[in-house]
Amino acid sequence: MRIMILGAAGMIGRKLALRIAEAGTLAGKPVGAMLLVDRITPQPVPAPFSVETKAADITDPGALVALAGWRPDVVFHLAAIVSGEAEADFERGYAVNLDATRHLLDALKGADCRPRLVFTSSLAVYGVPLPDVVPDDFNLTPRSSYGAQKAIGELLVADYSRKGYVDGISLRLPTIVVRPGAPNRAASSFLSGIIREPLNGIAAAVPVKRSMRTWIASPSIAIESLVHAAGLTAEQAASARALTGRGISVTVEEMIDALRAVAGPTIAARIHDEPDPAIERIVASWPQAFAADAATRLGFPVDGGMKAIIEAYIAEELGGTIAA
Amino acid sequence: MRIMILGAAGMIGRKLALRIAEAGTLAGKPVGAMLLVDRITPQPVPAPFSVETKAADITDPGALVALAGWRPDVVFHLAAIVSGEAEADFERGYAVNLDATRHLLDALKGADCRPRLVFTSSLAVYGVPLPDVVPDDFNLTPRSSYGAQKAIGELLVADYSRKGYVDGISLRLPTIVVRPGAPNRAASSFLSGIIREPLNGIAAAVPVKRSMRTWIASPSIAIESLVHAAGLTAEQAASARALTGRGISVTVEEMIDALRAVAGPTIAARIHDEPDPAIERIVASWPQAFAADAATRLGFPVDGGMKAIIEAYIAEELGGTIAA
Repeated sequence: MRIMILGAAGMIGRKLALRIAEAGTLAGKPVGAMLLVDRITPQPVPAPFSVETKAADITDPGALVALAGWRPDVVFHLAAIVSGEAEADFERGYAVNLDATRHLLDALKGADCRPRLVFTSSLAVYGVPLPDVVPDDFNLTPRSSYGAQKAIGELLVADYSRKGYVDGISLRLPTIVVRPGAPNRAASSFLSGIIREPLNGIAAAVPVKRSMRTWIASPSIAIESLVHAAGLTAEQAASARALTGRGISVTVEEMIDALRAVAGPTIAARIHDEPDPAIERIVASWPQAFAADAATRLGFPVDGGMKAIIEAYIAEELGGTIAA
Repeated sequence: MRIMILGAAGMIGRKLALRIAEAGTLAGKPVGAMLLVDRITPQPVPAPFSVETKAADITDPGALVALAGWRPDVVFHLAAIVSGEAEADFERGYAVNLDATRHLLDALKGADCRPRLVFTSSLAVYGVPLPDVVPDDFNLTPRSSYGAQKAIGELLVADYSRKGYVDGISLRLPTIVVRPGAPNRAASSFLSGIIREPLNGIAAAVPVKRSMRTWIASPSIAIESLVHAAGLTAEQAASARALTGRGISVTVEEMIDALRAVAGPTIAARIHDEPDPAIERIVASWPQAFAADAATRLGFPVDGGMKAIIEAYIAEELGGTIAA
């Protein structure tokens, strides 16, 4: 198996590379080589097989032709600019999030290697009005350029797959909680912050109502979901070319209750309310829960609940230690 | 008002140009100039305002920049290659049906004229499995490259509209019945043929089961729907950037019954069954009926039934005369 990861320097890309390197296999087959690609050269990972790293500009179609010439068996296409940047720079958003995906598909078609392609889509493909629980057959009416670009990517992946040029699957990842590291400017940043900061001895603000409900998954489950997508049979992938990943639907209040139960009242007391109407407006437009029937039927993994997500963060990122 | 029609040499494009020329107004305002564009120079239409005709290759982005420089107030984008051709020639399908739409949007953005853009989409954006009556919020899972290209066009029109670069609306036209002229190789061709040929003294074959149900509209209602879309307020268009046009849901049997009622048993007896499994398979994947709630709410017109469609064809295309 020859594995290529586009966007390998990002949080998910790096964890995915480490996960595959550690297992040494993917989709039940031994990995022979892995190529890690990003704008800047990704860090290598220790592995029992050959690992190459490469900096590439995916807005250059020629760079994608060269990458496709590596003849991957599996491609994870995680490379994208984030929602806020795509909204602020319309041209660059379309160049990176749409044109590069199209050129990647054309390059893989040209290389005639017909790889399994795992494309990370986003819940941003959905736009209000939404039902409380969004069914798999609900239409995509994105309210951001990022969401439009991901929705178009899904359609391209499905059509190139139907024609047999790739064997693709688009996975809409839930919001990832708990993201390690520093807060960022994403509207969703606080969802990780209210768990991460108190555990690290720092105060955290809740900018929305505590009754606000959202669809989340841990970094581990996101990684395992991508690995699972890579291992689906051709028939399974053809049955659901684009699907919403399994998550858990929790309110902010439930997240804080779980933190209190896992880490105690002193740590939970580091959270305070600090309403931010701008963030509240954005978050109000997000889906609250999904049926995710296709992902369940196809055996995708799911988190065991909010407490399990917090315990995993403490184990994986804090070495089991809490700043009391 | 400056009106541009892309695809003005086609059946719908030509009827639309004639309709606007006859009215002299669009969206309640006098028309000052109309530009008719197609691969080959479209025929001019007699009009109380300036009519220009132009041959242009819309796969050339520069040609679209030149057209946008004409600074239209309303653009009807009807230009496309048909389903069968897009499936047979993958690259050309994407070049004409997707890239040209994107380049048109970029050209209009560059010209900063923010026109009302009416984009003709298709029921081919839908793919099986489908409910008996497809609601407006059902997802798009096209099973053809043509359908994928139209679905992507809808997303682009919506996003460029959300950003204020155009004020667009994508209208999924029902299958047009009765198409005047000769049969073509479209799988839907027989739906017009079973009405048109008997009225012209020619035998017609039914390649599917007579219980087969489909969603149709007359050429007149298709034209009036496009005109109606051009006249929607900005607020109305923003409420439904992509919508399914109003049609009537009829079985082949009901179509034949209506022909018998309008034209008599001798003419209806010119229809015979001639099962064609290939056509049957294609048609079985088509939507049978739509809720079309958005189109109804926005006041789009609808045919008065199958008999009215046949009577209109006789009046408009046969000068009221039937070959008995």
